[in-house]
Amino acid sequence: MTEHFDALETRDPGQRERDLMARLAAQIGHAKSAPYFAESLRHVDAAAVTSRAALAALPLLRKHELIALQKVARPFGGLAATPRTALARVYASPGPIYEPEGRGADPWRLARALFAAGFRAGDLIHNSFSYHMTPAAWMLEAAAKTLGCTVFPAGTGQSEQQVAAMADLLPDGYVGTPSFLRILLEKADTLGIATTSLKKALVSGEAFLPPVREALAARGIKCFQVYATADLGTIAYESAAGEGLIVDEDIIVEIVRPGSGDPVEEGEVGEVVVTTFNSDYPLIRFATGDMSATLPGASPCGRTNMRIKGWLGRADQTTKVRGMFVHPEQIQAVARRHSEIRRARLVVTNPDAGDVMTLRCEGSGGEGVALAVAESLRELTKLRGEVVFVASLPRDGKVIEDARDYGTGTT
Amino acid sequence: MTEHFDALETRDPGQRERDLMARLAAQIGHAKSAPYFAESLRHVDAAAVTSRAALAALPLLRKHELIALQKVARPFGGLAATPRTALARVYASPGPIYEPEGRGADPWRLARALFAAGFRAGDLIHNSFSYHMTPAAWMLEAAAKTLGCTVFPAGTGQSEQQVAAMADLLPDGYVGTPSFLRILLEKADTLGIATTSLKKALVSGEAFLPPVREALAARGIKCFQVYATADLGTIAYESAAGEGLIVDEDIIVEIVRPGSGDPVEEGEVGEVVVTTFNSDYPLIRFATGDMSATLPGASPCGRTNMRIKGWLGRADQTTKVRGMFVHPEQIQAVARRHSEIRRARLVVTNPDAGDVMTLRCEGSGGEGVALAVAESLRELTKLRGEVVFVASLPRDGKVIEDARDYGTGTT
Repeated sequence: MTEHFDALETRDPGQRERDLMARLAAQIGHAKSAPYFAESLRHVDAAAVTSRAALAALPLLRKHELIALQKVARPFGGLAATPRTALARVYASPGPIYEPEGRGADPWRLARALFAAGFRAGDLIHNSFSYHMTPAAWMLEAAAKTLGCTVFPAGTGQSEQQVAAMADLLPDGYVGTPSFLRILLEKADTLGIATTSLKKALVSGEAFLPPVREALAARGIKCFQVYATADLGTIAYESAAGEGLIVDEDIIVEIVRPGSGDPVEEGEVGEVVVTTFNSDYPLIRFATGDMSATLPGASPCGRTNMRIKGWLGRADQTTKVRGMFVHPEQIQAVARRHSEIRRARLVVTNPDAGDVMTLRCEGSGGEGVALAVAESLRELTKLRGEVVFVASLPRDGKVIEDARDYGTGTT
Repeated sequence: MTEHFDALETRDPGQRERDLMARLAAQIGHAKSAPYFAESLRHVDAAAVTSRAALAALPLLRKHELIALQKVARPFGGLAATPRTALARVYASPGPIYEPEGRGADPWRLARALFAAGFRAGDLIHNSFSYHMTPAAWMLEAAAKTLGCTVFPAGTGQSEQQVAAMADLLPDGYVGTPSFLRILLEKADTLGIATTSLKKALVSGEAFLPPVREALAARGIKCFQVYATADLGTIAYESAAGEGLIVDEDIIVEIVRPGSGDPVEEGEVGEVVVTTFNSDYPLIRFATGDMSATLPGASPCGRTNMRIKGWLGRADQTTKVRGMFVHPEQIQAVARRHSEIRRARLVVTNPDAGDVMTLRCEGSGGEGVALAVAESLRELTKLRGEVVFVASLPRDGKVIEDARDYGTGTT
């Protein structure tokens, strides 16, 4: 029988949706107490944002914008709703991007993911994320406290001492990157130290490929992924069912077409956009830059929330064509100008050593429409390109496909 | 007007002593719930330990013994009173020595020291102790939470990023080693970054010499020391009065003659021995290996507790004489055998390239006594030595004085 962290996980999906939408208006209103959202949502009536459609009409906030916003208004770009003096901690991620942490018990909501990975009260956790500057280790720290686990704050590096501590302390589980876990296990092998106490792991921070998972399983360690970011905390997590990642209960996830804020169709690849209910750092439609897609159906583990497929690439498909930057936003702008286009995809090739752009449009348009679209394309990108109408485009989230041959094909 | 962390600090000294002694019997009884003390104190009636004299009759536990005790009984050598599964964290200090941390709010009692250093609710603390494996950073972390400060967990290393974070976040104060603070300030100078937000610091972990304190004061940073260890937490801390270190309110400090558990006279140098009221890790008469001495009088800051002079060397004066180890315990054993000896000090010289031992005894004894003492010395150390009676020995805590010339004097 599957255990669950709480009753929220097994809610009727319709009930969950009603619960989330019922909380949304208040959170939008709360976000507007932060200067950034006071400005970006100044024309938005918070009380009216009670549906996914209303949410989808709000502007996105892209992760890469944080650097510039924070430069102008230290430290949080006007995005924090809690005064700095009332925070528990401040983190610095590469960029630099600073993240505020409030004084709540599990502000990044990792406890649910840790529970789904099999961790329980009394377990000793060997935490190999870094506690210095960046928040990953701290997210797990708060989760461990919430579950009632004991933590050995191992941190990064010092692999020989970490293995020695494992041998002496006999941790039940590991949290950290999967690659560092492999480094520790190989070091243990070299030193002739058994690590058989380790039975489970919650991993994050990098791709977790099936061969790595299998190699760890062969050593008796059941590994589960959590998809979390420094700004948002948990987005989705794996359960023993082994089917995709289950979305966290306290956020709203949208999958949108890269370069736009428009939700894609069910199952289509797009950018992960998250709205949190974090009261200290209320991010509204935060575009992660990661691509994923929903996985249809319900998890056999009994958790009823939306599932996603995990990381399917970076959403920022900006590329350079004949020395000029082309952004997905520009391609979406071309598509929006012409009602004949349902979906567009710019394919860049270099058949004869020179860059060639072809805008493939899903929909139906005659020669006149194609010429008009080509004109829009030139106007918005300052580059000429061919326009072709096709019956259907793949649902892979690609708005710009770089199909150039960078190898021997250009000689 | 001086502010105080709580009313305990300004208690009438007699009242404090009665308060501490009233708590002692219960703590001894509690310690006996841990296997180590159940054995070491098996003949002790906990209820009768209600005075310093009764406490001084209990055995010492020396820090260096922890390594061997923990090897036999992982992880805490039978010294923890809380099961591992109910702890918040486990740390590893060099040795290795593992330390248990309970789930209390400020288990290492650093909040009092942080307050005395001028830190207040809402301050942003740049914490440059390491959070990885060892407990120092965590001790400050719990203290900061208790006071209501915000922490930037900087950790060690990455000095350039630390300075950049200082420039962006404008911390009010620093905690860490004084030498790393100097490294950060020099790096800031090199990069042309102002660090004028920094006004105070709580430093620990190494000697803090007057020129360093003055150099930091000249940059507008008021620095205060806390004397704390990984096993005990705060032992004593500085206040704005600038006179020695004030003993923490929740421990009992004794200064004993090195090699014995006997309290020295008021003001005499000796080893710092601490008894804590920590319920998770109840250390009874824990001999730190550090030497200090009480400072007579009361602090002008209004805190009425006993003051100590700070670190005055290591208590372990074990040395090698003619290839044989001689321990302070052996010298104390010689002194105890002869009632004519009030105090003894072994002086080792090498006048003619060979080691010579002279036991200088404070007291009065004729030639017959001196011969008997020399016989005891030979029996207990397996080494011959001269015995001299003198009227008085210096009160500097030295039981073994290595006065050998290791330079050019031996040719």
